[in-house]
Amino acid sequence: MSINVGVIGVGMIGQDHVRRLTHVLSGARVAAVTDVDLDRARAVARDLPGAVLHPTGAALVADPGVDAVVVTSWGPTHEEYVLACVAAGKQVFCEKPLAPTRVACERIVDAETAAGRRLVMVGFMRRYDAQYRAMKEIVAGGGIGLPLLMHAAHRNPSVPDFFTSDMIINDSAVHDIDVARWMFDEEVAAVTVLKPRTSRKAKAGFHDPLLVLLETVSGVLVDVEASVNAGFAYDIRGEVVCEDGTVALSESAGAVVKRAGTYSGRVPADWQERFVRAFDAELQCWVDAVAADRSTGPSAWDGYAATVVCETGLAALRSGAREPVVLRERPDLYGSAA
Amino acid sequence: MSINVGVIGVGMIGQDHVRRLTHVLSGARVAAVTDVDLDRARAVARDLPGAVLHPTGAALVADPGVDAVVVTSWGPTHEEYVLACVAAGKQVFCEKPLAPTRVACERIVDAETAAGRRLVMVGFMRRYDAQYRAMKEIVAGGGIGLPLLMHAAHRNPSVPDFFTSDMIINDSAVHDIDVARWMFDEEVAAVTVLKPRTSRKAKAGFHDPLLVLLETVSGVLVDVEASVNAGFAYDIRGEVVCEDGTVALSESAGAVVKRAGTYSGRVPADWQERFVRAFDAELQCWVDAVAADRSTGPSAWDGYAATVVCETGLAALRSGAREPVVLRERPDLYGSAA
Amino acid sequence: MSINVGVIGVGMIGQDHVRRLTHVLSGARVAAVTDVDLDRARAVARDLPGAVLHPTGAALVADPGVDAVVVTSWGPTHEEYVLACVAAGKQVFCEKPLAPTRVACERIVDAETAAGRRLVMVGFMRRYDAQYRAMKEIVAGGGIGLPLLMHAAHRNPSVPDFFTSDMIINDSAVHDIDVARWMFDEEVAAVTVLKPRTSRKAKAGFHDPLLVLLETVSGVLVDVEASVNAGFAYDIRGEVVCEDGTVALSESAGAVVKRAGTYSGRVPADWQERFVRAFDAELQCWVDAVAADRSTGPSAWDGYAATVVCETGLAALRSGAREPVVLRERPDLYGSAA
Amino acid sequence: MSINVGVIGVGMIGQDHVRRLTHVLSGARVAAVTDVDLDRARAVARDLPGAVLHPTGAALVADPGVDAVVVTSWGPTHEEYVLACVAAGKQVFCEKPLAPTRVACERIVDAETAAGRRLVMVGFMRRYDAQYRAMKEIVAGGGIGLPLLMHAAHRNPSVPDFFTSDMIINDSAVHDIDVARWMFDEEVAAVTVLKPRTSRKAKAGFHDPLLVLLETVSGVLVDVEASVNAGFAYDIRGEVVCEDGTVALSESAGAVVKRAGTYSGRVPADWQERFVRAFDAELQCWVDAVAADRSTGPSAWDGYAATVVCETGLAALRSGAREPVVLRERPDLYGSAA
Repeated sequence: MSINVGVIGVGMIGQDHVRRLTHVLSGARVAAVTDVDLDRARAVARDLPGAVLHPTGAALVADPGVDAVVVTSWGPTHEEYVLACVAAGKQVFCEKPLAPTRVACERIVDAETAAGRRLVMVGFMRRYDAQYRAMKEIVAGGGIGLPLLMHAAHRNPSVPDFFTSDMIINDSAVHDIDVARWMFDEEVAAVTVLKPRTSRKAKAGFHDPLLVLLETVSGVLVDVEASVNAGFAYDIRGEVVCEDGTVALSESAGAVVKRAGTYSGRVPADWQERFVRAFDAELQCWVDAVAADRSTGPSAWDGYAATVVCETGLAALRSGAREPVVLRERPDLYGSAA
Repeated sequence: MSINVGVIGVGMIGQDHVRRLTHVLSGARVAAVTDVDLDRARAVARDLPGAVLHPTGAALVADPGVDAVVVTSWGPTHEEYVLACVAAGKQVFCEKPLAPTRVACERIVDAETAAGRRLVMVGFMRRYDAQYRAMKEIVAGGGIGLPLLMHAAHRNPSVPDFFTSDMIINDSAVHDIDVARWMFDEEVAAVTVLKPRTSRKAKAGFHDPLLVLLETVSGVLVDVEASVNAGFAYDIRGEVVCEDGTVALSESAGAVVKRAGTYSGRVPADWQERFVRAFDAELQCWVDAVAADRSTGPSAWDGYAATVVCETGLAALRSGAREPVVLRERPDLYGSAA
Repeated sequence: MSINVGVIGVGMIGQDHVRRLTHVLSGARVAAVTDVDLDRARAVARDLPGAVLHPTGAALVADPGVDAVVVTSWGPTHEEYVLACVAAGKQVFCEKPLAPTRVACERIVDAETAAGRRLVMVGFMRRYDAQYRAMKEIVAGGGIGLPLLMHAAHRNPSVPDFFTSDMIINDSAVHDIDVARWMFDEEVAAVTVLKPRTSRKAKAGFHDPLLVLLETVSGVLVDVEASVNAGFAYDIRGEVVCEDGTVALSESAGAVVKRAGTYSGRVPADWQERFVRAFDAELQCWVDAVAADRSTGPSAWDGYAATVVCETGLAALRSGAREPVVLRERPDLYGSAA
Repeated sequence: MSINVGVIGVGMIGQDHVRRLTHVLSGARVAAVTDVDLDRARAVARDLPGAVLHPTGAALVADPGVDAVVVTSWGPTHEEYVLACVAAGKQVFCEKPLAPTRVACERIVDAETAAGRRLVMVGFMRRYDAQYRAMKEIVAGGGIGLPLLMHAAHRNPSVPDFFTSDMIINDSAVHDIDVARWMFDEEVAAVTVLKPRTSRKAKAGFHDPLLVLLETVSGVLVDVEASVNAGFAYDIRGEVVCEDGTVALSESAGAVVKRAGTYSGRVPADWQERFVRAFDAELQCWVDAVAADRSTGPSAWDGYAATVVCETGLAALRSGAREPVVLRERPDLYGSAA
């Protein structure tokens, strides 16, 4: 009864999802893997009893023994594999970004719309985090009035050498962009990016931290402090300010130590520690939906909109001005809310 | 490759473990069930593809299609099923109590010792809670000196009608008794039970709350406020006081709301909300150990010691005096620490 | 040995300072009062043994029985009374604003500079709040690196009918403007004001809340959520983000109640509750300085700079653009830091 | 209009009250001082313009220039000075203990009762702490039901060499004893003292920490962890458990720093830092009452009852048993509540 999942791309996040599907979640097994580095894929397959090694993503998607696909390859290759899944009528879980460009995302949205059913889920895992869900529930419940502002901070302790300046928006702030769309069930209408004093720890040529300002269609203003050299921890903050009150993410629970004149608690060390439960819940949700032949989760439209807001954010970073976000019309397939 | 698990007793906690094994955890399936109420067992089996219904626990244990057994039946029946598993050389996860009497526990310890290998794990799930684990790590790390006291509170919002007065110790405080043994790696040497003013919500004849005082062999004093009509929430508190500092469980993380002059956060509603992750981790740990033919977790000795401390606690409740805890000698099978 | 203080203006804040000087602080007595409403002044004087009623501020300043003056009259009248004090060589504590216009403030700075000594202290009481002082000490200590951003929120539960739209900046955000200058020991270089969705509770024609963005000379970016209809409480937030860590104001300490599924603490009801200790400390500090013939506290320059930033903020609110802050050269009398 | 206060005993706490009366509070001046060490008294008097040096406490009390007296001499001398004040009809603020023995306290109670009016206030300053007051208000409000238990901890970082073993109860836990009587408006009926494992930092012969158990007349059980070598900070904890909820002292507010993987806040370093505001409020309250010819604050009866509970606690420490507290009948002068 288990879903047979094929995994395309077994780098760090791909291997983490393989581990999750194999050792943590219920109802799925990894039946096939591939990677641009076939030796790496072979090594991963060796530890997975019964898993098939495929030479290409296309071959994996075509494998009749693969019920559904997880795409965790390099961003620019997502489009090809997602389109292949849509063509094959197989459900696909694609790590963010859906695709790195607006036009690539549009081709996926077009293909899925033509197929007439949702097959694509994008990996915006914060929607599965218990704290963010509690916030959304409280905001949506209306007990503290309509939302007016949101304050957010995304603080990475550090980033690897391959991390480029654009990735502060495309890779870090993109999560807050998706949170804003999801929290308020509406699109982002404009983006401004401000450059505070740069940290001495920023790489040459980086503006780090940034303050990214998002305006939603109804006028909710979201400020996101995005920093990728915060150093001290992986610190994710959020507070929604409504007409009659506010709701904020709390500090992480855990043991509180009193020693040497202070009380102190832990701030997560990295995104795995902070969001491990959200990743588990996200992928379990997808497995359950695949098993039930339903669609679920952030859609291709969500992936498209996030990519467009990121593109607009990069334009705003360069222009120094407020840049309007221009989206195509939303196909009926994706309903009416964000 | 999945472990085939047989479940004896499918009441509330049994059904919860069936759900966990089937829909949450990885590496196990429920292959057989039974219950004193066969209709209930039949209804549960009906939803489990391929699961066999057995007329008795003995038949279930004997089933060659059952690799390992979960015992979630009524406490007084635990001994019979655990002994059958030990006799059959099958690993068994037994919900607490291991058995309700000292002598029943001793028979299990004797049987397991005779078998020469650990087959029994007892369901003290707090040992798998992230916060308790962080506390123990900090205490064991020695950075705040040797432990001197522990303050604990176990506040149940309410209890069902069948809950008896003795269960405040046997069913609620037993968790704190196990935590004390595990946290400090030593046995409890004496118990005193004090009776504060009784809540108006206590059932007739109940002393509720109680203050249970445990002394460990090395002199650590543990005070446990045990209340089963706290009403407002399921509130579990703990603070270990050491020579150079303290470590405490934090309040639950979650969304913090500001409204109407206050900030506020949630206290868990019940034990499922508070400990769901610990139950998941506990049973996954057992499944992994069974698959690897290893033993793990709280042992039959831990179950025995907890039952003896509870018995002593009930004696102390009746006598009003400090009662020493008398344990038999610890078999080598169980190592030297608590 | 007590300082004889004359108070000009005995409305709400003036009466509060009279009470403070008379019943809370040490080393001062109110020796003279006046007010534009002489009946009100007479009523206040009646309760102050030995206090003289003066028909005008000028007469009060000229009274040889008055050692030093507190100006708590209507903002537009501050200039006249402060200049009179400077001319008379008497120390003066002037509630903010020093004066409502740039030119009026310049005349005070000119007069004081000509006098060759500091006689004016401006009532920016947050500099005397224990939490803000602890923040500044940590930032200045350098242990968490150089400051990069500051996030702030100034949430008034509500405001009286006479409160005008400009006062969100002139009366509320002005405190955060002074905090920014003081926290980072440098001037504000530019202001931008953004308009989030307006609260249903805002008066007609108000943009409320606002997001006020301040850039300091060195590039620290300060975002201030300024809201005067927050409703739920008087909520003052602040977090300074530095290169190696952050420092934030904590929630108010007090009793924490657990009831009905939540834990909760109090958020202050109004500015008196939040800052009563800061007002006490501020005025005691002034009394002590007067007694010792020293000057202390926020200077006329600080009052001037805050007024200029507010004026620039109002221009930015109207233009929708980033507006540079233009200050005259800083006289030596005021040292080199903000 | 200032009250002229005479201070008997100008050691550490006496000098602190002199400073408070002179530089912090309103409405009083120190008009006379004395001390067993006259050179010390002379040095203190030298800094107080117009203050008279008296050779003895008796002379100070008799001085017609002294309106009211603060007794901050060595505990065993309190009785003499307090009785002299009562005889002279002068109000007296006496630091705790009122007197170190039951019989000495009784003589004071008898004298005051004979005088027919309250003249004595005892320095239990926690009753003036904002957090404790908020707790009492919530408990007394009844919104969380009747009180059942209280958990408290009194952790001194360290104590001076002259600190004796008995002082853990007489000098530290005495504050919690007074809090218990005041919080629940009733007397303590019995005391038990338990000895956890002793800290390596305890002086030879000390049992430190202790767990002091107080039972009130209505059955509220109060457990007090009393430690005088906690090392890490001055940490005062308290939680009242009621039928429908709990109320606890929060951690101290202040700046919260995030750095190196943790968030942390300050725990007070010593009793001055923790209770400075309470001392100010307490003594201002007394000054105001003296000025108004009213009595206020903890009474001689409160001082007597605290001393009797401490005596009983020392007996319980020695006996290892529960010891009943025996109080004489309460004179009408002291009303009916604790």
